[in-house]
Amino acid sequence: MSKLNLAMIGAGRMGQAHARVLAGLSECQVVKVVDTFAANAEKAAAELGAKAGVHLEDALNDPTVDAVVITTPTPTHAEVVEAAARAGKAIFVEKPIAHDLEAGRRVVRAVEQAGVAAQVGFQRRYDPAYLRAKELIEAGQLGQLEGFRAVGRDPTPPVLEYLKTSGGLLVDMGIHDLDLARFYLGEVAEVYAIGGALVNPELKQFNLFDTAVGTLKFASGAVGTVEVALRTTYGYDIRTEILGERGRLHVEQDRRPNLTFYDQRGGNFDRPRNFEERFREAYAAQMVAFARNLHAGKPLSPTVREGWYSLRLAKAAQQALESGQVIKVEEFGGRL
Amino acid sequence: MSKLNLAMIGAGRMGQAHARVLAGLSECQVVKVVDTFAANAEKAAAELGAKAGVHLEDALNDPTVDAVVITTPTPTHAEVVEAAARAGKAIFVEKPIAHDLEAGRRVVRAVEQAGVAAQVGFQRRYDPAYLRAKELIEAGQLGQLEGFRAVGRDPTPPVLEYLKTSGGLLVDMGIHDLDLARFYLGEVAEVYAIGGALVNPELKQFNLFDTAVGTLKFASGAVGTVEVALRTTYGYDIRTEILGERGRLHVEQDRRPNLTFYDQRGGNFDRPRNFEERFREAYAAQMVAFARNLHAGKPLSPTVREGWYSLRLAKAAQQALESGQVIKVEEFGGRL
Amino acid sequence: MSKLNLAMIGAGRMGQAHARVLAGLSECQVVKVVDTFAANAEKAAAELGAKAGVHLEDALNDPTVDAVVITTPTPTHAEVVEAAARAGKAIFVEKPIAHDLEAGRRVVRAVEQAGVAAQVGFQRRYDPAYLRAKELIEAGQLGQLEGFRAVGRDPTPPVLEYLKTSGGLLVDMGIHDLDLARFYLGEVAEVYAIGGALVNPELKQFNLFDTAVGTLKFASGAVGTVEVALRTTYGYDIRTEILGERGRLHVEQDRRPNLTFYDQRGGNFDRPRNFEERFREAYAAQMVAFARNLHAGKPLSPTVREGWYSLRLAKAAQQALESGQVIKVEEFGGRL
Amino acid sequence: MSKLNLAMIGAGRMGQAHARVLAGLSECQVVKVVDTFAANAEKAAAELGAKAGVHLEDALNDPTVDAVVITTPTPTHAEVVEAAARAGKAIFVEKPIAHDLEAGRRVVRAVEQAGVAAQVGFQRRYDPAYLRAKELIEAGQLGQLEGFRAVGRDPTPPVLEYLKTSGGLLVDMGIHDLDLARFYLGEVAEVYAIGGALVNPELKQFNLFDTAVGTLKFASGAVGTVEVALRTTYGYDIRTEILGERGRLHVEQDRRPNLTFYDQRGGNFDRPRNFEERFREAYAAQMVAFARNLHAGKPLSPTVREGWYSLRLAKAAQQALESGQVIKVEEFGGRL
Repeated sequence: MSKLNLAMIGAGRMGQAHARVLAGLSECQVVKVVDTFAANAEKAAAELGAKAGVHLEDALNDPTVDAVVITTPTPTHAEVVEAAARAGKAIFVEKPIAHDLEAGRRVVRAVEQAGVAAQVGFQRRYDPAYLRAKELIEAGQLGQLEGFRAVGRDPTPPVLEYLKTSGGLLVDMGIHDLDLARFYLGEVAEVYAIGGALVNPELKQFNLFDTAVGTLKFASGAVGTVEVALRTTYGYDIRTEILGERGRLHVEQDRRPNLTFYDQRGGNFDRPRNFEERFREAYAAQMVAFARNLHAGKPLSPTVREGWYSLRLAKAAQQALESGQVIKVEEFGGRL
Repeated sequence: MSKLNLAMIGAGRMGQAHARVLAGLSECQVVKVVDTFAANAEKAAAELGAKAGVHLEDALNDPTVDAVVITTPTPTHAEVVEAAARAGKAIFVEKPIAHDLEAGRRVVRAVEQAGVAAQVGFQRRYDPAYLRAKELIEAGQLGQLEGFRAVGRDPTPPVLEYLKTSGGLLVDMGIHDLDLARFYLGEVAEVYAIGGALVNPELKQFNLFDTAVGTLKFASGAVGTVEVALRTTYGYDIRTEILGERGRLHVEQDRRPNLTFYDQRGGNFDRPRNFEERFREAYAAQMVAFARNLHAGKPLSPTVREGWYSLRLAKAAQQALESGQVIKVEEFGGRL
Repeated sequence: MSKLNLAMIGAGRMGQAHARVLAGLSECQVVKVVDTFAANAEKAAAELGAKAGVHLEDALNDPTVDAVVITTPTPTHAEVVEAAARAGKAIFVEKPIAHDLEAGRRVVRAVEQAGVAAQVGFQRRYDPAYLRAKELIEAGQLGQLEGFRAVGRDPTPPVLEYLKTSGGLLVDMGIHDLDLARFYLGEVAEVYAIGGALVNPELKQFNLFDTAVGTLKFASGAVGTVEVALRTTYGYDIRTEILGERGRLHVEQDRRPNLTFYDQRGGNFDRPRNFEERFREAYAAQMVAFARNLHAGKPLSPTVREGWYSLRLAKAAQQALESGQVIKVEEFGGRL
Repeated sequence: MSKLNLAMIGAGRMGQAHARVLAGLSECQVVKVVDTFAANAEKAAAELGAKAGVHLEDALNDPTVDAVVITTPTPTHAEVVEAAARAGKAIFVEKPIAHDLEAGRRVVRAVEQAGVAAQVGFQRRYDPAYLRAKELIEAGQLGQLEGFRAVGRDPTPPVLEYLKTSGGLLVDMGIHDLDLARFYLGEVAEVYAIGGALVNPELKQFNLFDTAVGTLKFASGAVGTVEVALRTTYGYDIRTEILGERGRLHVEQDRRPNLTFYDQRGGNFDRPRNFEERFREAYAAQMVAFARNLHAGKPLSPTVREGWYSLRLAKAAQQALESGQVIKVEEFGGRL
């Protein structure tokens, strides 16, 4: 299989994380890195043996580029996807597909009208444990699904400036858990959420939250909870449970798995620190799938259409959090 | 220390569970067992080397009886407590203290006016792991408390007849989790809950639930979730987390602790089956504390006043579940 | 069932541990405590509501005493068992049954000739996890047994004076692990062991060991290891594995089971501290079995004959440790 | 950093495992694959984008080849290393460095006289958990080291033909555990081992073992055990413990870490299946270190000299196993 030639659009924090993953993959070759900050682009490009640029067009007009990996700030996703679709490039876009539902509709329309292949960066769907859970569910091991629980706690909060433009806690971060809710149990009918600025009270003046908990009522009748927070002290804490009439699946990396230290304090173990450690395999697997499925002409997953529905759920949850109201998801934000 | 002479009032399912515990304690001696079903009373009495009776007065008029252990059906708690208080007996009463808040007020009034010692059966407060968690919190190990999560899942649902009179899922069963919420984080300001009859759809026609999830907003600003269900297939599943600015406490008996069996299926472990297995030590410890504190003239805990506030929270949560409304707890059900 | 009336012979460290267990059992009543140190006897007797004495005959001549529980120092076991057997009392004797194999033979002979019931205190055989392992093995879940591994590490060494008279590390302490080897896999054909005075180098001058590891070759062809040490810093560490053609059973209490504390150091859990904590249920269960089987006229287990074979294996292992030679167990110490 | 150009010598089972690892590394580029079976060489070469050959000289005479990765059958290691050293190539050689100690001496001499850089494939020394254990030990967290325990159990035995030429159980497989013994606690003074053909009795006629347990007496006075077997049914089982005066380090991948499935059988988890799964990171890390240290002109580790001492220990252990004698390691097999 020949290597897929990629252009990375965006070389900030998430772009760099993707670059570290892509550097280790034999299925892809990053040939171009574009970032409006030339220094970012050049640094990543140098590490990847690629060319750097500051203009999106540099990548889109380059006929050697097969596909773009979009890791720019969320508010720019829609226009970058639209341009890439027009240029006929295959697209990998980080979650969320856009900063609001209207822009999300433009993303879906652009991709579908151009007929380009596109995949959204919900990397957990490619994590071995989440995949195995999906397999067991589809094999009927849980029977009828009845419940869902998700915890997503980041080790340390991002800077205030980021939080102000991120779209809100349940969109920027909670969307991963909410996407899993849909992945396993299907659409959510109603969402309710409460929260606070418990980690950093300064957030209150900007109507921002760093902690939220909520309930999900699924169209199927199943119920669930979701909890998101921005600081743990004890590392990265991502847990997901799916409950069914025949059992329970529990996905969690409780510890760095292979070492325990016993001393006078008792037993002690290290914990995974951050998303890059926890989801290293998943980040690689989703790019490998992207490359292989493109190469084989197979459909990509999750699609931008999937991405829109997960964005809608996240936006509805954020609206619930901010308004104190129960939000009916299907009536929220218009149709796709 | 001389033994505390007890009369057990009620020898049904919970009474028998208490009897098994009391049989092994050297601090107490059950001298009388009263149950309106003579057969129940006689069976338990025979096992405990006690006398059986069908009339409450048999126990209350007996001057050798120091204290009563009330494990009758919930709707009778209030009148039995009132009678016992009038008779000047020390009182241990199973949760909840009464079937409604008005009856609960009568319980508190009766105990406080008679000046008798009384303790409510929230046995988890005496479980070694929950106690150790309390110690760590009080020693400041978590810093400011920010979150709470509770799961309470029974292995198999009770019969329909029981469910109809039990006061509802979040009162009969959820009260244990809600009492822990108060035990660790103080009063809850607002509660919201959703659920369904997912295990047994037949419950719907009686407006009963077998599955519920909810959110708790504490007066302190902390937030939390609670989840209760009546069937697991995989044993008894009780988990509680307390989150603070410095860490997280996780209380769970994930497995029968001491044996793992590895074979071609992988690793396999047995799970605790039911509340008697999980909380054996806690049930014993609360009765030992009852006996020792009475003997030493020390205050009992938790008091019926505590029991009333936990009942109020449970009733508010049940009201949230049944109405779909966010319930403000302090405005619910009148004052004590 | 009427209570079994016990006389405790010996109220030192092990006697007190047994007393704490017996105090909580409804199947037995300690009516007499004998210890050559009157203070020991009186203290334990007071706590148990029993009479105290300093003469063995006080207990043996008392017709209300059904059975004796012998927890005196090991060198006295044989003569106490012999006297109790002559007096026709049922006998529970702590491990090892005697300080040497010749005295052990006298114990077996005394019991069998008098026809009294007798049980040796290998409490692990009554631990729920060890029992469940036995069940699984007997149900054929492991298939043919192939291997055995045992670790026995005490948290802190006993005082030097105790060590000098205890019979050696692999007799006094290792006998528990070696008894389990026999319990699961049958007789050991050859034993080899090495060790040192690693915890307390002062032991060397007395030819004593505080650390030992060894290999076991079973008559069946299976092989195994055993490791014993007298200090951990991290609590009580008892692990046993049985390996078979179809899988592996692993018995271990790795942690106080129900609480984990996560903070900036990672995850942390408390560990069981000592044998009383780890084997509380087993100590109770063996005495309950003693009482119930006596009452029902059923055979007791393990017998003093079993106790003699486990002592022989322990003595052979100790001999291996001290001599550096591979010891053939069946040729060691004469026949029973 | 420019990529290190590698020639792989040997494309059998281990060669293919290395190829899968090397394919994902950006630090190295395999340019040539040599195997006496042309089909093996071609298959691996095609996957790696390399050229295939059947003659060692093809690789050694190629000036674009910076280093060789030797994964041929053990009996050929010595001559391949000698040829590569003469050709001035840097060398990575799988364990053991040679099939006997005399050939091992030739390996060390060839490397040291040619002055080429060389590294032996004890990948566990690069596993994150083993590395972290080493760090903790070197930071003094365990204090004085007192004990060592290793278990190494493969899921399924290799074919008989392989076993006949592999050098014996404790050389071919046990050498990993024995190398760790040296890595953490230094040289072993005496070794003793017993075992059998428990998995496949047919091995007996060839004086082969599939199961062995042994004891190690370290020069420092510490003691330990090692256990090796060729079949588990339950996956790959590698455990290592280091015991010190202040605590215990336990390295084990007990489970595929991130998923637990609870159902009516209890809790269930998958296990790592084989060395490739368990040590994927370690295999990659050792090659990354090889490439980076070569590039930076830093020393490689472990050296062939280290490899010789681990081979001597393994040979001594195998001799103990076959002879039933305690073997003094320093007197065994001559000096380096």
